[in-house]
Amino acid sequence: MMSVDVEISEVGPRDGLQGLKAFVPTAVKTAWITAEAAAGVREIEVCSFVPAKVVPQFTDAREVVAHALSIPGLTVAALVPNLRGAEDAVAAGVHKITFTLSASRSHSLANVRRTPEEQLAEFARIVAFVRGLPKEKRPFLSAGLSTVFGCVYEGAVDEGAVCRLASALAEAGADDVSLADTTGSAHPLQVRRVVAAVKAEIGDTLTALHLHDTRGLGLANVLAGLDAGIRAFDAALGGLGGCPFAPGALGNIVTEDLVYMLEAMGLRTGIDLDRLIAARRDLAAALPGERFVGHLHHAGVPKGFRPASASTP
Amino acid sequence: MMSVDVEISEVGPRDGLQGLKAFVPTAVKTAWITAEAAAGVREIEVCSFVPAKVVPQFTDAREVVAHALSIPGLTVAALVPNLRGAEDAVAAGVHKITFTLSASRSHSLANVRRTPEEQLAEFARIVAFVRGLPKEKRPFLSAGLSTVFGCVYEGAVDEGAVCRLASALAEAGADDVSLADTTGSAHPLQVRRVVAAVKAEIGDTLTALHLHDTRGLGLANVLAGLDAGIRAFDAALGGLGGCPFAPGALGNIVTEDLVYMLEAMGLRTGIDLDRLIAARRDLAAALPGERFVGHLHHAGVPKGFRPASASTP
Repeated sequence: MMSVDVEISEVGPRDGLQGLKAFVPTAVKTAWITAEAAAGVREIEVCSFVPAKVVPQFTDAREVVAHALSIPGLTVAALVPNLRGAEDAVAAGVHKITFTLSASRSHSLANVRRTPEEQLAEFARIVAFVRGLPKEKRPFLSAGLSTVFGCVYEGAVDEGAVCRLASALAEAGADDVSLADTTGSAHPLQVRRVVAAVKAEIGDTLTALHLHDTRGLGLANVLAGLDAGIRAFDAALGGLGGCPFAPGALGNIVTEDLVYMLEAMGLRTGIDLDRLIAARRDLAAALPGERFVGHLHHAGVPKGFRPASASTP
Repeated sequence: MMSVDVEISEVGPRDGLQGLKAFVPTAVKTAWITAEAAAGVREIEVCSFVPAKVVPQFTDAREVVAHALSIPGLTVAALVPNLRGAEDAVAAGVHKITFTLSASRSHSLANVRRTPEEQLAEFARIVAFVRGLPKEKRPFLSAGLSTVFGCVYEGAVDEGAVCRLASALAEAGADDVSLADTTGSAHPLQVRRVVAAVKAEIGDTLTALHLHDTRGLGLANVLAGLDAGIRAFDAALGGLGGCPFAPGALGNIVTEDLVYMLEAMGLRTGIDLDRLIAARRDLAAALPGERFVGHLHHAGVPKGFRPASASTP
């Protein structure tokens, strides 16, 4: 495989689908995953392992994971909110588990009915569980710190608390830590400041940003993250999952627009834009009732555009 | 008036309207200008002075200018492509003329049927005309260099030629020079590089960027411009003028999203976001057939948000 400068994790099959009311057929999910992997996407978060009562969208999680695992070279990731989810994810055979912990107490209580401290204790149980597995069955264990840049309940989130939680997750045994702008309220100076502050605590254990484009600053925040040394970003094809006509629209940044920006800036993602846009088109056709956003699929690349990834065999 | 950190020039009444097929009633234009000025916008490009046969949208230019001139404190700007337009703009009494010159030969020929060199000669005639006016009638003379970051005909545009043209415009007598991403093909590293190169030639005579959001990078390019020392940006309310469902969508960056980003970053624009969003809502109601884009009007500001402009009386 070619080396890349920036790693893109497609989270649409998880973050994009979790809010949809209608169950998306398993065949649509697996075709989506296949198409993105064929476009060069190297990591896809394919589902959450959560109770079917809470999110019925992921009742086919094991089937979807099994399909994704059949694609050579693809890192198959899943989100888990607790030990039970981690056990299920390991049983399904995922390569990477992302555990989610909210920096906002109110959001944490609303989301997982636990305080951040209780979630930290849960994470310690997951670490113990994973370390107890035979080495070849151990997934990569990522800790995703959410509501880092603001909270719909609390407003501003204390940056000191963010740093302490990031440190605690790293010390507890996270293989890496990512920071999420769950509510899409980050601005570029804040991204630079918070990334620098967290890096001062845990160094390169901070790897990734998970940004939402709620207020149109998504790619500006990516630029700020790049400036601060971040080289991995989550995104969703077509920004699926956002609800741009409702207050509090929460869509992820748009994978194809993100890849275009990075490739234009000379940063290789290993992803073929034409195939990515074709994957978007097919997904939109398979989900006719859903709202897709973004710019690149309308405008196309500029005349004479040469993506960075094309310059390396 | 309060001092500001970043100057916003609303160009929607010119750049947003020039591509619309239907004539927008004068009363809609003047109400728009009134509402934005009331929201704190200090400069509005209210029209182009071009032959009515070419752009029938601006047949009411003198009436619109007269209205705008009646608003205390507002800088009234107009675009002109030639001496005749400059003469008409001065006769109408505008405070600021922006002369446009394309860095791409093909685009220049298509747009004004002159080479860039011939446009430079036309600019010299405008300078002579303006300098011949009594001092109190002389407008501020701005030179807008267009297709700086790419051209739909030629693709890449030579950065050396951009620097030479910027220097020539400054030497010819431009009060300031701005750079336009006419085709929305700029990326952030290019913005930083080109701004630095042009500043090396003409220093702070380069003041402003005119960016389009064709491929979603508009606000990331603003951030890059800020990093490079730019403190003035053009934008259009609701991104009016873009055509997001057609290839080659060309919308300006969205004024309200831009103001939000700047205010969030602690940079005062002097603009009240609530009133700006109300102005957008009224404009959209007055132009029901047109497409408005952007994010902030859906999502609103984050909980606990405090704009920078609110911190100073």
